[in-house]
Amino acid sequence: MSRTAAIIGGGVIGGGWAARFALNGWHVRVYDPDPEAKRKIGEVMGNARRSLPGLTDVALPAEGKVSFHAAIAEAVAGAEWIQESVPERLEVKHATFAEVQADCAERAVIGSSTSGFKPSELQQGAARPGQIMVAHPFNPVYLLPLVELVPGDAGEAALVEQAKTTLSSLGMYPLHLKKEIDAHVADRFLEAVWREALWLVKDGIATTEEIDNAIRYGFGIRWAQMGLFETYRVAGGEAGMKHFMAQFGPALKWPWTKLMDVPEFTDELVDLIAGQSDAQSGAYSIRELERIRDNNLVTMMRGLKAQDWGAGALLNAQESEMRAGTALGARAAELPADQPVLTARRTVPLDWTDYNGHMTESRYLNAFADATDRFMEIIGSDAEYISSGGSYFTAETHIRHLDEVHAGAVIKITTQVILGEGKKMHLFHEMREGERLLATGEHFLLHVSLETRKPSAPSPEIEAALVRFAAGHAALGRPEGAGRAIGGPR
Amino acid sequence: MSRTAAIIGGGVIGGGWAARFALNGWHVRVYDPDPEAKRKIGEVMGNARRSLPGLTDVALPAEGKVSFHAAIAEAVAGAEWIQESVPERLEVKHATFAEVQADCAERAVIGSSTSGFKPSELQQGAARPGQIMVAHPFNPVYLLPLVELVPGDAGEAALVEQAKTTLSSLGMYPLHLKKEIDAHVADRFLEAVWREALWLVKDGIATTEEIDNAIRYGFGIRWAQMGLFETYRVAGGEAGMKHFMAQFGPALKWPWTKLMDVPEFTDELVDLIAGQSDAQSGAYSIRELERIRDNNLVTMMRGLKAQDWGAGALLNAQESEMRAGTALGARAAELPADQPVLTARRTVPLDWTDYNGHMTESRYLNAFADATDRFMEIIGSDAEYISSGGSYFTAETHIRHLDEVHAGAVIKITTQVILGEGKKMHLFHEMREGERLLATGEHFLLHVSLETRKPSAPSPEIEAALVRFAAGHAALGRPEGAGRAIGGPR
Repeated sequence: MSRTAAIIGGGVIGGGWAARFALNGWHVRVYDPDPEAKRKIGEVMGNARRSLPGLTDVALPAEGKVSFHAAIAEAVAGAEWIQESVPERLEVKHATFAEVQADCAERAVIGSSTSGFKPSELQQGAARPGQIMVAHPFNPVYLLPLVELVPGDAGEAALVEQAKTTLSSLGMYPLHLKKEIDAHVADRFLEAVWREALWLVKDGIATTEEIDNAIRYGFGIRWAQMGLFETYRVAGGEAGMKHFMAQFGPALKWPWTKLMDVPEFTDELVDLIAGQSDAQSGAYSIRELERIRDNNLVTMMRGLKAQDWGAGALLNAQESEMRAGTALGARAAELPADQPVLTARRTVPLDWTDYNGHMTESRYLNAFADATDRFMEIIGSDAEYISSGGSYFTAETHIRHLDEVHAGAVIKITTQVILGEGKKMHLFHEMREGERLLATGEHFLLHVSLETRKPSAPSPEIEAALVRFAAGHAALGRPEGAGRAIGGPR
Repeated sequence: MSRTAAIIGGGVIGGGWAARFALNGWHVRVYDPDPEAKRKIGEVMGNARRSLPGLTDVALPAEGKVSFHAAIAEAVAGAEWIQESVPERLEVKHATFAEVQADCAERAVIGSSTSGFKPSELQQGAARPGQIMVAHPFNPVYLLPLVELVPGDAGEAALVEQAKTTLSSLGMYPLHLKKEIDAHVADRFLEAVWREALWLVKDGIATTEEIDNAIRYGFGIRWAQMGLFETYRVAGGEAGMKHFMAQFGPALKWPWTKLMDVPEFTDELVDLIAGQSDAQSGAYSIRELERIRDNNLVTMMRGLKAQDWGAGALLNAQESEMRAGTALGARAAELPADQPVLTARRTVPLDWTDYNGHMTESRYLNAFADATDRFMEIIGSDAEYISSGGSYFTAETHIRHLDEVHAGAVIKITTQVILGEGKKMHLFHEMREGERLLATGEHFLLHVSLETRKPSAPSPEIEAALVRFAAGHAALGRPEGAGRAIGGPR
């Protein structure tokens, strides 16, 4: 039974929310008087479809239906989450909330994408103030996890918890701010940097390109994984934060900054910035830059995922939730032994394709190796077991690359045990997109002691689980393509 | 003939410079009166050795010698680059430059790591002012590419060009600022964010952890690949920068910021911050956080490298330079056909190891696939050829995993052609660490038309190059391990 979200106001932000919900299987009902709303949201959905599903190693649910409605009353029907992303004018927001609350469920969460207004301002004059909270996202909403969640004093605690649970289920990170303030937290930092940057451009100290490079070749890369305070803590070394601050504190009194003043936004300044921006980035269209950006974000976030850190740790947590209670999270005892085991169902990510335009060859083994890890987990050789000193090492691998597959495709891997006894495990994986066989991966593994790095017997539980599958799969017969050598008969 | 750099002042920054130079093959001569200098620099070198070499797919040169000297005069002997990283006190820097210039080469670059002083201030009273320039790096210096290079009005143009060439050869990005200003560019932004963050903590709006998460789950990830202006350009959509600024400009007048004031650095505020930092990050030691940070940075930078963007594009440019004029950049005509071809010599990066503590199985195929790409390039099937519509697809792969290898190890791959004629290419790779055989990778490839996705004849030039290697390698005999199937005889 799909859940329903209402999107009031489209554009880049509303469209990003629509994509985030729809790609997580929710039905999405949109209201936006802009005649271009359907096209604009469609473009955001296109960007989202190519980038979000590959962030995790488990395929997202089937995409929910996105429908467009002529009135707010229709859009909010049946919705348990209503996201407002109308223009940043308080009277427009108030009128919107009045219409929403006239027809929506009383226990629906009403989130506002506002970057500037405080919850108390939004809640003024509302029928049910406690239902309205700031839920401020970051562009692209379908990729970046942060949502600043500010309920204000009127916010209703149970509804706030409901909001946090929902956002987490979408792979987002609800940053619950207990005190309200103009622009919340993150945009205050962007504001501060923006002012300083405007001065630097105006005074001819640096161009827009030089400023951007000062960010992305330096502290910008650091901030993708550790924030301001943690970075300084590490820099402070063993002497600690207090030492760091003792060194840094005095500098605050130096005349480093013109932040006391705001530069005049003259036509001249605007032209200067626009011209430098064209020189810096004009070789690419906006659409091209969006796609490049999303390729980069997916690549880095999947990298952090492999490190189980920062935004990547969030993805791992989301993935664990997605596996729980499904075949992709089950243990041996819950699975039948008389058929191949489902060991993967995932979307080919953006960073798995190569210059040939298809999933690159080493990622076939990446997928098969992950499937082997999943099978190991099923029989009990999981992270906990491995940290106790036993594991399986792969000794030999044979891959038949039979067909191409592209980013965004959902692939499945099913696994048959050819041999499973004692220290030995011989697996045969089949990778498919739908019915289409893409590749087979045959692997011979040995259980080893991580201490001696030599073959050793697995635990009795693991061997029993493995033997059960081996016996059950023996009845399936030898899979086609097993036991091949390169140059062998086709 | 190794080049020599002098490091005046160690610590995290001086040590980072020492590591950057030494790991790029320079001899490094250190002067630092701190009795702990050798230990501190050793620790930075340890961090650098595990992280820097794997950033590129070509192994760095042999590490240069790092020596410690009792006087500045000794340290600067023979040095063509002298990096000053002494405490941030102008009189100490002046005294240091005086000693340096009394004995150093007149055409050596004297770079200062100062975060706060302008070049004109550093150059006051110097024997040769034009020789001294700001060269301000970012921690960790051995990973982050940005160096703010500020020669000031006295800076000598030829020396500045020399400095930029040297920094680029080290994989760094010299941001040449033509006008001097306190704190240069990047730290002015950090300063602005720091002040705002202090207010938020002091006023109880957010904790250090909440602030850091607001950064690293949101705009922080964006800034690792695109800076402020480019991000806003994309967000502004087709309407462009002017439209974006028209929307954003008015907000600058709103009372969002307390930036007009600087909060008092009382013991109370310091304790508040230190306590929150402990609660946030105290589960890890500083050394652990440093290693986690470097794992993350390497992972993300190598991700950007695969996308050929931002800091990753810098790595690719550096790598091209490293390949030029060596066997790893040569074409078929320059290589003998009577021996296996060297197709890789690289350091196992930090993000290639898995929970078993060794290079993970899919990265063996990553390395072999890259070696195949290199062989393809050698015979003429390079990026240009591929964009003209021809390529090779791998149809079948067999890997024998014979031994383990760890992050930081230098591995070599040599390639023999088993069959090379018409549309077919059958390669056999051997991966070694020193003499130790780690794995073999056997691959059968077919030349295809990228338009039809079907087998097609390669260009005559490519076929000729391939046939020449096939003929030469035939005399070597069939490599041991070729033609194996899993379950075949050992």
